[in-house]
Amino acid sequence: MDIRDVLRAQRIETPSWAYGNSGTRFKVFAQEGVPRDAYEKVDDAATVHRFTGVAPSIALHIPWDKVDDYAALSRHAGEQGISLGAINPNVFQEDDYRLGSVCNPDPAVRAKALAHLLECVDIMDATGSRDLSLWFADGTNYPGQDSIPARQERLSEALHQVYARLGEDQRMLLEYKLFEPAFYATDIPDWGTSYAHCVDLGPKAQVLVDTGHHAPGTNIEFIVAFLLQRGRLGGFHFNSRFYADDDLMVGAADPFQLFRIMTEIVLGGGLDASAGIAFMLDQCHNIEPKIPAMIRSVLNVQEATAKALLVDSEALRKSQVEGDVLGANAVLMDAFSTDVRPLLASLREDMGLDPDPIAAYHRSGHQEKLRAGRVGGSAAGWGA
Amino acid sequence: MDIRDVLRAQRIETPSWAYGNSGTRFKVFAQEGVPRDAYEKVDDAATVHRFTGVAPSIALHIPWDKVDDYAALSRHAGEQGISLGAINPNVFQEDDYRLGSVCNPDPAVRAKALAHLLECVDIMDATGSRDLSLWFADGTNYPGQDSIPARQERLSEALHQVYARLGEDQRMLLEYKLFEPAFYATDIPDWGTSYAHCVDLGPKAQVLVDTGHHAPGTNIEFIVAFLLQRGRLGGFHFNSRFYADDDLMVGAADPFQLFRIMTEIVLGGGLDASAGIAFMLDQCHNIEPKIPAMIRSVLNVQEATAKALLVDSEALRKSQVEGDVLGANAVLMDAFSTDVRPLLASLREDMGLDPDPIAAYHRSGHQEKLRAGRVGGSAAGWGA
Amino acid sequence: MDIRDVLRAQRIETPSWAYGNSGTRFKVFAQEGVPRDAYEKVDDAATVHRFTGVAPSIALHIPWDKVDDYAALSRHAGEQGISLGAINPNVFQEDDYRLGSVCNPDPAVRAKALAHLLECVDIMDATGSRDLSLWFADGTNYPGQDSIPARQERLSEALHQVYARLGEDQRMLLEYKLFEPAFYATDIPDWGTSYAHCVDLGPKAQVLVDTGHHAPGTNIEFIVAFLLQRGRLGGFHFNSRFYADDDLMVGAADPFQLFRIMTEIVLGGGLDASAGIAFMLDQCHNIEPKIPAMIRSVLNVQEATAKALLVDSEALRKSQVEGDVLGANAVLMDAFSTDVRPLLASLREDMGLDPDPIAAYHRSGHQEKLRAGRVGGSAAGWGA
Amino acid sequence: MDIRDVLRAQRIETPSWAYGNSGTRFKVFAQEGVPRDAYEKVDDAATVHRFTGVAPSIALHIPWDKVDDYAALSRHAGEQGISLGAINPNVFQEDDYRLGSVCNPDPAVRAKALAHLLECVDIMDATGSRDLSLWFADGTNYPGQDSIPARQERLSEALHQVYARLGEDQRMLLEYKLFEPAFYATDIPDWGTSYAHCVDLGPKAQVLVDTGHHAPGTNIEFIVAFLLQRGRLGGFHFNSRFYADDDLMVGAADPFQLFRIMTEIVLGGGLDASAGIAFMLDQCHNIEPKIPAMIRSVLNVQEATAKALLVDSEALRKSQVEGDVLGANAVLMDAFSTDVRPLLASLREDMGLDPDPIAAYHRSGHQEKLRAGRVGGSAAGWGA
Repeated sequence: MDIRDVLRAQRIETPSWAYGNSGTRFKVFAQEGVPRDAYEKVDDAATVHRFTGVAPSIALHIPWDKVDDYAALSRHAGEQGISLGAINPNVFQEDDYRLGSVCNPDPAVRAKALAHLLECVDIMDATGSRDLSLWFADGTNYPGQDSIPARQERLSEALHQVYARLGEDQRMLLEYKLFEPAFYATDIPDWGTSYAHCVDLGPKAQVLVDTGHHAPGTNIEFIVAFLLQRGRLGGFHFNSRFYADDDLMVGAADPFQLFRIMTEIVLGGGLDASAGIAFMLDQCHNIEPKIPAMIRSVLNVQEATAKALLVDSEALRKSQVEGDVLGANAVLMDAFSTDVRPLLASLREDMGLDPDPIAAYHRSGHQEKLRAGRVGGSAAGWGA
Repeated sequence: MDIRDVLRAQRIETPSWAYGNSGTRFKVFAQEGVPRDAYEKVDDAATVHRFTGVAPSIALHIPWDKVDDYAALSRHAGEQGISLGAINPNVFQEDDYRLGSVCNPDPAVRAKALAHLLECVDIMDATGSRDLSLWFADGTNYPGQDSIPARQERLSEALHQVYARLGEDQRMLLEYKLFEPAFYATDIPDWGTSYAHCVDLGPKAQVLVDTGHHAPGTNIEFIVAFLLQRGRLGGFHFNSRFYADDDLMVGAADPFQLFRIMTEIVLGGGLDASAGIAFMLDQCHNIEPKIPAMIRSVLNVQEATAKALLVDSEALRKSQVEGDVLGANAVLMDAFSTDVRPLLASLREDMGLDPDPIAAYHRSGHQEKLRAGRVGGSAAGWGA
Repeated sequence: MDIRDVLRAQRIETPSWAYGNSGTRFKVFAQEGVPRDAYEKVDDAATVHRFTGVAPSIALHIPWDKVDDYAALSRHAGEQGISLGAINPNVFQEDDYRLGSVCNPDPAVRAKALAHLLECVDIMDATGSRDLSLWFADGTNYPGQDSIPARQERLSEALHQVYARLGEDQRMLLEYKLFEPAFYATDIPDWGTSYAHCVDLGPKAQVLVDTGHHAPGTNIEFIVAFLLQRGRLGGFHFNSRFYADDDLMVGAADPFQLFRIMTEIVLGGGLDASAGIAFMLDQCHNIEPKIPAMIRSVLNVQEATAKALLVDSEALRKSQVEGDVLGANAVLMDAFSTDVRPLLASLREDMGLDPDPIAAYHRSGHQEKLRAGRVGGSAAGWGA
Repeated sequence: MDIRDVLRAQRIETPSWAYGNSGTRFKVFAQEGVPRDAYEKVDDAATVHRFTGVAPSIALHIPWDKVDDYAALSRHAGEQGISLGAINPNVFQEDDYRLGSVCNPDPAVRAKALAHLLECVDIMDATGSRDLSLWFADGTNYPGQDSIPARQERLSEALHQVYARLGEDQRMLLEYKLFEPAFYATDIPDWGTSYAHCVDLGPKAQVLVDTGHHAPGTNIEFIVAFLLQRGRLGGFHFNSRFYADDDLMVGAADPFQLFRIMTEIVLGGGLDASAGIAFMLDQCHNIEPKIPAMIRSVLNVQEATAKALLVDSEALRKSQVEGDVLGANAVLMDAFSTDVRPLLASLREDMGLDPDPIAAYHRSGHQEKLRAGRVGGSAAGWGA
């Protein structure tokens, strides 16, 4: 395996919603030049790909990115050099979903949520997307508010109906999250819950690991290695955090953790296309400019991958088998300590890209062009 | 000390912003009958007081509760049987504050924030409020984004200017918060930082403890006891949480913790009016009806206080001095295990109140009246 | 269902190791009168049962409680009114286990560990124990130290061999723990890992929930409800903690959490003998006297159970189905706020017990008798 | 400032207790060749210095390292090329300290603890040590067990007496720790408590930051920057952890965090000798060989320092002042991404050292020599 070939083949998907305005419950700060519709979000994703070479698809959020003609949107993406990726249904942003979507005690709300999920599979048919990326905000805020097992049954029923609707080459990625917006009991709070439902459903149901969705202290690479070994790792929503689900740029808070995750991926064969793992970003750039932040994020995943590929797996295994604690750790740290930026710069030149994507983007004047051109209309925001 | 007298004299302040719509970054769920301006928020706070008897003031948030004539608002409150309480400036909800308010690297933004803080002292003069309740959303999202010591200097400078402006009977309560909206380094992240600044400033600066603002595992009652002992506990923002700053009803997540906090208050003399401690609620009722949730919250503080008052302090001290671990703990648990609802029901009857405020509120038809009457106009929301 | 009948039938198992000296890595504080062998530990467990009436069995730790003749030990227990309960193998307290037991990279160490596990099933045959309670200290301290998937394979292999050895009426309870003594990656860190292995193994493998073994913020009652619903909850190791695995008396740190757990048990039918759930304590009384601490712990579980039984499940379900957030929560809190001590005192009198077991124990002079009688020999300690 | 000069002048102190056997409460794993007395611990510290060149002193723990003649021990150290560093009293490892040392409810125990602290200042006089490094295990395990404010008073009294005893050039470093061995309320749980006592005491009392002693999510570099700015940062106990106080090799769990800490030190002038900051390691090598682990740890601090020195502080300040979030972060990350191992290898050659200390140590045959030579006697262990 030539490291450069592997890095050249890497595919990182960026999310449409990261290009629009976003914020916290305290304030959404408006930025100039943000896209105003799905087409302009596709343009921004294509820009990120143009500078990095490894971000050739964009995840969509429905209904935020709803269009009349998905074939047209898909053609537009193709003309920009990228494709449409995972479809992310939204069953949390309407008043009906106050007490949940597919786990809501009200059957009418559950039916509405299910209909939306099925509609999203229709959209997948239209876009050719492989992955239905499911995140449920469902849960409760107060002890006693609803029955935990009753909600599990409702969840299971909805998942089975969606699963049955999936086409031959379509998959369901089931995300988990410790808390927020549910503040007492989230209905899929951890990987174990997601895994159990996926096993119930069948091989087309896979666990989606969002790196920001764990309890403090959780060893994420353990989960990744465990799921990969059992063929149940569907993909990632990459981001980083110091506290809770902060959605900072992936690798910004703990680059060593990102490296450890990518090392498990590399050692477990997860970079092979046949493993079917979707490497997706899921972030919000609340205070920093969005396109450069996304370029930086893609580079961070790329750098972590390059370092993981540098791990001397033979030496590692040898030290491990011999019980040489410090020796095995040193093999890992040698790779992490290496500066992979020269390698990646050279790779980019081979790929016909600028060796320094961030600098190149700033030199390009693209940001100024967006600021000048995207006036009028209403800026896309988180939820818009 | 007669327990009933102490309970009768208790004063819990409710916050204007809890009566309007609120939510998470994912969704603000609209409720019917929520207030549309500061006057209607005062009405709702007065309703809570009418049913509980121990919530005779309302905290205001500026500019959310800005009015032309504070004397008129104050009279309106008085006519409803309550008074205007702490003034809470808001220096986080404008685009200018993207990188902070008083800690912003831009001096113009700092000046703007300072002007708002000083304006709030003017408002205190008009409302007769004692407490300026300061919470800063200031902080950074990424390592390196700004200089930690430079931001501390800017913070200190602004605090000194506000302090100098305080009148004889006015105080500054300085709140701290681990994170959110700042996701890397908050400028006042913990009680130690707040305490150090208060000591710098002088006796009119006091620490404000928000029960939802700590790192996981923090022993809040230790902080309360420590500050109380040193005369630096200015007051509380009560709420509860299972995870981060969830703003659930106080006592809902961990009633034993609330009891332990109130026990330190009782044992440390913090219920005496002379201690000057402000017992304020700071909550968001995202999915539950607001007025009954606020009544429930007031009752929760009251019940915890009653239990704390039942602690046999002589027996406790005796066991503590003897090193009787289980005995001392048992004294505390005896009080906690006691059902204080009959005591409080009887006290309410003495005070001319319904013994069951929640049931009485539901029977009153007040909620239906609000739903019917408060139509048109725009509902007050968090930030509105 | 009569509440008193349920409470009378409750069975809480106490652990032999809680009666000996214990401590932290900083210091084991010696206490007078602690047992010096397995027989005296059985005596202490019998004492706890004699005063509480609901603790009729003792869990054993092998080799700490190794005896030549288990039939004799079993007879001794029977004469004291209790029986021998779960068998807990120990594969962490020998130098060979520095890098793990069944997950050790060295096949000879794995074989040794497996032999010990199988020996423990032999002991179960002799004692008539139903449950093999498995906790593995296995894990790694440094990234790279060993291969996560390789360790999972070794774990799986050992578990399958032990499972195959289980008799008709024997079960394997598989415990998980976030960390300690492994400080980087524990081999069974969470319920999901345990669950996945149990599903692999078959119906006689069940998840054991130790209430102190979770990441901060984990909703334990969710896990309990989830496993119970799927028939995979084997039992509990009860204790409590404010921080990590502190092994304080169950219910001491968060009595409301214990109540929520027991409420899920009651609502899910987990108190029925047919559910087969083992309610066991797993604690260390480092600074407090051990027998009274254990009595207190048993009472805490009993009180939480009584409160859970008081939950008006019909009213709860009604409020839940109607989406009445505050109403449903209030049903729960009504039960929690109730003082169940009079009910339990009366029940104890019916059972021929003293209504106040703690006071009765102190009056009995038993502790003084143990102090006087148990001199010479070497005191049993944690690990002894 | 020449980076190489700064690195050459760096001084990292290693702790005597890290060279002996250590472990968790579950097991202390014995290693061959560990020292058997204080003299052999000094030898091991000298070995670490011989290979790294930047570890010229050893911290002592009293009474673990008690000797009859400290002048002789000091001479022995000097002959090995190192000096005796901070004195660490031990007031937690005797049965008397079950309920605390200087905060114990029993005045006799408090007096005993105080006497030991004063004795340690005598030892400092004999060894010429500058720093008395104070860590108290004091605290409570159960709510109500003892009075929080009463314990603070006792603590304050003892600290004042020790402070009064300090010589002209002696300091007191006051450590804090969230929990363990106290499991409910630690008497100095956080930096704020330590800071408040230091301010009470005077300029010779300084806060000691142990990197493993914080609540999850605490921003340690904020604390470092804050204390440094106020002249209250006395020094560090370096180590790392993924969960609680795990005492892993510093930099092993989160090298980026260590870099951020060292960056605050560099930017705040904390590397100047005049700042008086003690950079000490405090670790336990439970499963890995101790001397190489300590060499690795020293190198980790050195590498983090080198990266911190590479931060372009002018560019950083410029980006910060301009509010360029991504630009400022990029300045930091550029330094962190740099591989500083070649720089340090070259520096070592200048210093007459082997460029690769770990490899050199292994080649030296020193470990084998220790194994062969240190037989008989009793191995020093944690607490011995």
